Amino acid sequence: MTERPPMKAINLDEKFALITEYFTPKIIAEHNGHYVKITKIKGEFVWHDHENEDELFIVLKGRLVIQFRDGDVVLNPGELFVIPRGKEHCPIAEEETHILYIEPAGTKHSGEVDAELTKHELEWI
Amino acid sequence: MTERPPMKAINLDEKFALITEYFTPKIIAEHNGHYVKITKIKGEFVWHDHENEDELFIVLKGRLVIQFRDGDVVLNPGELFVIPRGKEHCPIAEEETHILYIEPAGTKHSGEVDAELTKHELEWI
Repeated sequence: MTERPPMKAINLDEKFALITEYFTPKIIAEHNGHYVKITKIKGEFVWHDHENEDELFIVLKGRLVIQFRDGDVVLNPGELFVIPRGKEHCPIAEEETHILYIEPAGTKHSGEVDAELTKHELEWI
Repeated sequence: MTERPPMKAINLDEKFALITEYFTPKIIAEHNGHYVKITKIKGEFVWHDHENEDELFIVLKGRLVIQFRDGDVVLNPGELFVIPRGKEHCPIAEEETHILYIEPAGTKHSGEVDAELTKHELEWI
C-alpha cells in the first residue's frame, strides 16, 4: 500500500495509465473514511448490492450502463450517479469505460457476492 | 430544495450551465451523509479551515490554486486533491474555474469564518 504524496494534485489520466486490468479498482485518495477509487471496466460485472453504503459513480471515458432490476441508468463521460444502499445493480460496459467512484473505505466492490471478478484486497496507486 | 430525480444520470455540464454566480456552491447529489457540490470561482476566496471535515476537490475546467500556509497546490482539469481537516487554506483562481467537491453535508464552505462571500444556505440544482 502506497499513500499518495500529501501536498500534490492527483492527476486522473496518470493514475488511469497505471491500470492494466479490467474490474480491478485502485485507491487514489481517502477522505472522511471514504476511498476514492478508479477502475477500468469492459464487459459485465456481477449483480450485487451494498447493504449500508451508497456508491457515487462518475464516468470519465466510455459509457457505463448500471443495470437495476427495475431499469437501467446510462452514464456518459461527465455524468455521475449515486447508487442507493441496498439497491441491487450490475454495471456493464460495451467499450472500455473509466470510472471514478467513492464509497466508505470498507465497501466490497461486489458486496457480499464472491464472484470470479471479486478482488479482495485493493491497492493504492 | 429540489431533490435530484432518483434514476437518471446527473450531467455536470448541464448543472454548471445553471450557475450564474461565482463562489455560490450548489448541491447536485448526496451519498453517505456527504453532499456533492459544484461551484464556479474566479478570484480569491477567504482563508478558513474545517475542523472535522476533509474536503475532496476535483477541477473540471480552469485552474485552481489552493493556498496553504506552507505552500500551494495547483489543480488543473482532471486533477483532484483532498484538503485535510484542520488545515487552513484559501482557494484562488485567476480564470473562471469549475470545481466539483465533496464534503459532509453540514460543512460550511468558509468554515467558521463569516465573510462577505459566505453563503449560509446552499440550494440543490
